[in-house]
Amino acid sequence: MPDSEFEIINRYFARKAFASKNIILGIGDDAAVLSTPADKQLVVSIDTLISGVHFPAQTSAADVAWKALAVNLSDLAAMGAEPAWFTLALSLPEVDHDWLAAFSESLAAISSAYHIPLVGGDTTRAALSITIQVAGHVQSDRALLRSGAKPGDQIFVSGNIGDAALGLYALQQELERTDDIIYLLERLNRPQPRVEAGQRLTDIASACIDVSDGLFADLSHILRASGVGARLRLDHIPLSEAAKHFLSEKPQLLPTIYNRGDDYELCFCVSKENCAQLDAVEKRLDCRLTHIGEIVAGHELQVFDREGKVLDLSDDSYDHFAEKV
Amino acid sequence: MPDSEFEIINRYFARKAFASKNIILGIGDDAAVLSTPADKQLVVSIDTLISGVHFPAQTSAADVAWKALAVNLSDLAAMGAEPAWFTLALSLPEVDHDWLAAFSESLAAISSAYHIPLVGGDTTRAALSITIQVAGHVQSDRALLRSGAKPGDQIFVSGNIGDAALGLYALQQELERTDDIIYLLERLNRPQPRVEAGQRLTDIASACIDVSDGLFADLSHILRASGVGARLRLDHIPLSEAAKHFLSEKPQLLPTIYNRGDDYELCFCVSKENCAQLDAVEKRLDCRLTHIGEIVAGHELQVFDREGKVLDLSDDSYDHFAEKV
Repeated sequence: MPDSEFEIINRYFARKAFASKNIILGIGDDAAVLSTPADKQLVVSIDTLISGVHFPAQTSAADVAWKALAVNLSDLAAMGAEPAWFTLALSLPEVDHDWLAAFSESLAAISSAYHIPLVGGDTTRAALSITIQVAGHVQSDRALLRSGAKPGDQIFVSGNIGDAALGLYALQQELERTDDIIYLLERLNRPQPRVEAGQRLTDIASACIDVSDGLFADLSHILRASGVGARLRLDHIPLSEAAKHFLSEKPQLLPTIYNRGDDYELCFCVSKENCAQLDAVEKRLDCRLTHIGEIVAGHELQVFDREGKVLDLSDDSYDHFAEKV
Repeated sequence: MPDSEFEIINRYFARKAFASKNIILGIGDDAAVLSTPADKQLVVSIDTLISGVHFPAQTSAADVAWKALAVNLSDLAAMGAEPAWFTLALSLPEVDHDWLAAFSESLAAISSAYHIPLVGGDTTRAALSITIQVAGHVQSDRALLRSGAKPGDQIFVSGNIGDAALGLYALQQELERTDDIIYLLERLNRPQPRVEAGQRLTDIASACIDVSDGLFADLSHILRASGVGARLRLDHIPLSEAAKHFLSEKPQLLPTIYNRGDDYELCFCVSKENCAQLDAVEKRLDCRLTHIGEIVAGHELQVFDREGKVLDLSDDSYDHFAEKV
């Protein structure tokens, strides 16, 4: 094959990185060199997206690139971190210039939108997979953790829950592309990580996680890490208009939206005293922050329907070793 | 499959991480939290190893783990950085507990040997591949780059060149496991990244790279980045006793050892004034530092044989999109 690893990196990735004061040396040497502001700590996370597992094989190169960085940015958002830089390990079955051009353009677009430059990478020949490691900065000892929730704290989510799960269903069932379904697919393929919300919550929230595996599964991580229980009101969980329309026709999909992931919204807890500050935060965001329940003593997650009946939660949330898209 | 991603991380990886003063929060939240010493910069590199591409499919889990971290540590060595932390993205075709136990034990062993804790990871279900992103610390603005070589600088390599290439040949040809071949295979499967050498060279060397793609290809990266040429003496390039024995029987393999990679030695340049300091450095290392040539004006790499004749260098160095093991 005529195209070497070096040519791929130079042609598609090195030129598209932008300057940042924390980048001393970017792509092109054995490693990148970065500075971390003296009063900040570094927050890092690594995530792999595999074709056919984390996104359907027919997903466009542009959507794959967007999602690969977005899901990692969502981890930074959950910690309240400001995006700083990322590295990319890209496995490709062959050198496809159309694919690489679309992928790298889209990656540059989200990289620029969230002010996070690419500083290093590796390309290898194998089935399509994208591994990204992101790094962000937080004020020292101010990272939002899963472990700080206390009984009495109120539980909130950003944005709406379940759009991506319904989008995936529509894709798998090859449903007609109505406006609603186009919206749901956009939410599946182009998640908007809540980076600004996360940063604004560092002084307010007691615990936070991003909803990647499903709302109930992810909230359960907070409960386990904090040693607490929770009570949720099912009808308080915010849904988009598109999701409501879709569910009115297919009510049997209701459990899916709480048990499947890919929302990339934030689920967070706030003490009663701090709740008053949320209105001011929400005004500066492009998403709603919705109250969905309360942290209680114990270790159980109880979900109540509109009539106050406790739901039976069978745990079929997405697990990477249990299920494929 | 009964084993979830969370169980794999907790059972095999989370418990084996060790404490370090720079690790504020390790595995278990949305991201890790790390501190960087105020007078240091961060050096980061990411590398993927694919089964059947970067290591033969029959390689043991223990050797795969060792090599996956070693090749990344070698990038830190080439920058003169002190290992700080790493993240791991592991794709597995299935949950194989014997494999995972051997892999995680070996990863913990090299992690401990080089004082670099695992701080985060992701496991996915796909063909076997291992992506590691390492981070190290250097004194601010003291990282060893490829771009500092100047005419008159002397060129050195650490250790011996070509053992891994011969080991790979022996493996592919299924040669009998003599002592020599066992040694060469050990060099292929368990490279010793020259982390200490790199750190001791930061104040002495003008340019440095690790030999991962082949000595000539990697030295060429220094030449291109520095805008210089070089003259090498082929018979000065250091070979192990095992490699010499092997080559005495198969002299046709001589070009292989300069054009194939996986040595993970350092190739570096030192000004004439600084050469006097190398003896003291070498005494504190467990590897030799061998003078192999000189940087000259121009942009050509010229290699001379014992009789002073210039060799014809056909570039068949290893390229990830050109060749498989």
